[in-house]
Amino acid sequence: MTHFVNDTKDIVTEAIDGLIVGSGGRLTRLDGYPHIRVVLRSDWDKSQVALISGGGSGHEPAHAGFVGEGMLTAAVCGDIFASPSVDAVLAAILAVTGPAGCVLIVKNYTGDRLNFGLAAERARSLGLKVEVIIVGDDISLPDIPQPRGVAGALFVHKIAGALAQSGADLKSVAGAASRVASVVKSFGMSLDTCTIPGSPKEDRIPTGEIELGLGIHGEPGVGQSRFESAHAAVSVLSDRLAEFMDDEPLVALVNNLGGTSYLEMSVIVNDLINSRLGSSISHIIGPSALMTSLSMHGVSISVFPATEADVDLLSAPSSFGAWPGITAVRLPQFIPLPKQLAPLEFKSSTNPVLRSMLSKCCITLIDSKEHLNALDAKSGDGDTGSTVAKAAKDLLSSLDHLPFSDPDQLCLCIAQNLGKSMGGSSGILMSIFFSATATALSAGTPPVKSLQLGLGDMMEVGGAKPGDRTMIDALAPALEALSAGIEHAAAAARSGANKTAEMKTAGAGRAAYVGEKQLSGHIDPGAEAVARVFDRLAL
Amino acid sequence: MTHFVNDTKDIVTEAIDGLIVGSGGRLTRLDGYPHIRVVLRSDWDKSQVALISGGGSGHEPAHAGFVGEGMLTAAVCGDIFASPSVDAVLAAILAVTGPAGCVLIVKNYTGDRLNFGLAAERARSLGLKVEVIIVGDDISLPDIPQPRGVAGALFVHKIAGALAQSGADLKSVAGAASRVASVVKSFGMSLDTCTIPGSPKEDRIPTGEIELGLGIHGEPGVGQSRFESAHAAVSVLSDRLAEFMDDEPLVALVNNLGGTSYLEMSVIVNDLINSRLGSSISHIIGPSALMTSLSMHGVSISVFPATEADVDLLSAPSSFGAWPGITAVRLPQFIPLPKQLAPLEFKSSTNPVLRSMLSKCCITLIDSKEHLNALDAKSGDGDTGSTVAKAAKDLLSSLDHLPFSDPDQLCLCIAQNLGKSMGGSSGILMSIFFSATATALSAGTPPVKSLQLGLGDMMEVGGAKPGDRTMIDALAPALEALSAGIEHAAAAARSGANKTAEMKTAGAGRAAYVGEKQLSGHIDPGAEAVARVFDRLAL
Repeated sequence: MTHFVNDTKDIVTEAIDGLIVGSGGRLTRLDGYPHIRVVLRSDWDKSQVALISGGGSGHEPAHAGFVGEGMLTAAVCGDIFASPSVDAVLAAILAVTGPAGCVLIVKNYTGDRLNFGLAAERARSLGLKVEVIIVGDDISLPDIPQPRGVAGALFVHKIAGALAQSGADLKSVAGAASRVASVVKSFGMSLDTCTIPGSPKEDRIPTGEIELGLGIHGEPGVGQSRFESAHAAVSVLSDRLAEFMDDEPLVALVNNLGGTSYLEMSVIVNDLINSRLGSSISHIIGPSALMTSLSMHGVSISVFPATEADVDLLSAPSSFGAWPGITAVRLPQFIPLPKQLAPLEFKSSTNPVLRSMLSKCCITLIDSKEHLNALDAKSGDGDTGSTVAKAAKDLLSSLDHLPFSDPDQLCLCIAQNLGKSMGGSSGILMSIFFSATATALSAGTPPVKSLQLGLGDMMEVGGAKPGDRTMIDALAPALEALSAGIEHAAAAARSGANKTAEMKTAGAGRAAYVGEKQLSGHIDPGAEAVARVFDRLAL
Repeated sequence: MTHFVNDTKDIVTEAIDGLIVGSGGRLTRLDGYPHIRVVLRSDWDKSQVALISGGGSGHEPAHAGFVGEGMLTAAVCGDIFASPSVDAVLAAILAVTGPAGCVLIVKNYTGDRLNFGLAAERARSLGLKVEVIIVGDDISLPDIPQPRGVAGALFVHKIAGALAQSGADLKSVAGAASRVASVVKSFGMSLDTCTIPGSPKEDRIPTGEIELGLGIHGEPGVGQSRFESAHAAVSVLSDRLAEFMDDEPLVALVNNLGGTSYLEMSVIVNDLINSRLGSSISHIIGPSALMTSLSMHGVSISVFPATEADVDLLSAPSSFGAWPGITAVRLPQFIPLPKQLAPLEFKSSTNPVLRSMLSKCCITLIDSKEHLNALDAKSGDGDTGSTVAKAAKDLLSSLDHLPFSDPDQLCLCIAQNLGKSMGGSSGILMSIFFSATATALSAGTPPVKSLQLGLGDMMEVGGAKPGDRTMIDALAPALEALSAGIEHAAAAARSGANKTAEMKTAGAGRAAYVGEKQLSGHIDPGAEAVARVFDRLAL
């Protein structure tokens, strides 16, 4: 498996530099590369309780992405999936801890516990006030003596961070962090394992299977089973999480483990809200990639029984992108479709001249069916004649219902008919032509100019222009000449149509040369249709 | 390939419902399921110019995720990678367009052009003021007559959105949108194609290759080549984009196509800033998943020559999660490592009693090497004795330099020595024990109590407790009995150590029963070491 990296040994430092350069000056780091990789707030003045988290890298945006006002003061970044050293953690503590003290928020992995733990002791021996909060929120493995820490740590970061930002003292901040850590519960699942850059792809989860409860380093979970549906998978997580929750309002954090599409994440949210836990979920954080496992195709759900004060803290503003904020769950509302969406109703009226003209056009197109099909067969699927004839027949049969005395309404009515009966791109383009003409007419634009405006809109939308070997090569010169009389228009249309026989296709750059040779000498069927219509009108 | 979905025909509607339910009431939709899928602002009063975008689904958060104050008014969602119908677009226009008019922002794909185009004409014929802006920002295929629209559309959304929000009229909003669309340029690359849920995995890009310039539906790009490094790939994109840019300040949008890890995205940002274009980039948006191709392992870079006024508009606040904001590029600064990080310096001093005690402990542990190794071989890798003996020998050789007259300094010094010489988890845990003891001593805590506090911290960090078959089973009772005299402590340690022979391991739930049988009858080597030390001190 390939990754967007350079030398694998530099991944973490390069990523940190990339993060810092895009932080707008909000973040800085300690000068300890390559072994000490500590990201910290640039504006930190040690006047409040500092919050430090970290651990192995590969869980981004955790933790460096959450360094900022109202969340973490510093993040200590280890190698991918490996704890940072005692010295790195101690460096972070020493760099950010003032008289107010600091709280270390540590996910429950042995390496992190030990390294953060010893760093805390060393800092204490240097006279600093340091509290350590261990987060072990993963309930997926009930028999494990030390539950793993997963995305639930985000609740601790945000609530403790908001409290610290408000000026709360060490005891309050550490107490809140400890309380949150003790009640937040998480459960993950994945359709595939993650792959560490530079390492071979791990194929532990077969295609079509889901693994429940795996850890954020891809550690095995409770087991694999056939993947049935997002709904079924979310139900299992919801049921398991519900065992730990009372009937209290919950905040749910829906965490993308890195490689799950937004579309799937939103489907999962929908399933979660419709799951057993759904009615208890008052607020939601995400769906968002918060505590990832590189680009694992998985998701974790964390739930936290939040007091109103907790919700306020979780809602505290944060000025940086990685924190998605919290929103109240509201059952989807919808509003009625606009009434004007119904097909327009037209009142039939008479205008013998216009009716005769339209009738002639239709008959001409119906009569041209075989010829146009034959032309189209040179370059396309040979159905232009059939398509056009079908639409013409349909229009012909509705002549008694058309609003002939009202030209702009007539154009609109034709536009609506063609949009329905003709189908495909050509139907839409003709519909645009007549719609735009109608709009111009109703604004008092003279007829010829209106038709030209209609053509202009059609060209703009369709993206074709004269010379692209389309009906426009006949229609554009015809409309140009129309003010001089229908005979001039017909002559221009015929001349324009004939020229298409010498043209390459518009997409010449992508067209096969075989195609170009085949086209040579054959008039474009759309241009031919236009020429024939004008010919007939000029008779 | 498996996806977190249910019935594939319901993916888009379920995802929209998931999005809306998590929007905190900010979003609603038209009652047109399943064919008309339009997401719109709940608070929209038609008093400003409306902005509508959309297209096929599978590009989330685009476009529904950008519906909100200061960006889009509505998003029209087609099936995955398929344009929404004319009726769906018209429904959106009718639902949100007031006297101020509306602007449709359309990515340059034929289906979208036609369907949005006809809907615009129809809405105009109903008397609404509608402008259509086509975005074709992809420069990767120079010979294509209609450049594709990719993530550059986000610049149009945000700038036009901020203008509309400020009350600008239709002409200004459409004019700005058109100007932005004409100058923003994008280029994508990917290490793999994306897979539509329910469809088989497409393997067009072999492992180890990169495809440059592929479209957001996985359409082929300019070609594939061997992937060398992120740096090399970004250089190609940077060079190609630079051809379209003058020496003006640029805003770069770094877009995750869905399946690229944060770590890689940050590496790419770092490479971009160090590329040919880098010095021109004044601001950055992302890295973030903005215009995805489901979960494609790729990235696109869009650059936009922004005026100061543009930057202000791009910086306008938005209250929702999908927009990552814009930040000024600042070359990474770093701050020096804290001075206290250097190893502590201790001043040697004398205390014959303490020196003699420590010496005896060390010799005892050195003498126990083989016995402890043998015990460890029953449950571990048989090196406990060697590890302990090495640390003891090291400490013994440094007796002349220890600060014996100052017990808390002595403990700190031992902590530092053991952290270095012992290594591994046990070294860190012993270091925590002595560090915490030192901290307690220096706070005036009596010696025995200090040792107990040290043990407490070690237990908290290590996560082991009495009964878990560790050294704690000897150390805890010994320290408990110590105030009654060293003989009592020694007796308690021996009794505790002996009990470990009957214990299962702490991780019994995960331990093989074979392991349990093998352990039975053998004392834990850590506990034995503690018992032997206390035995010796009590002589």
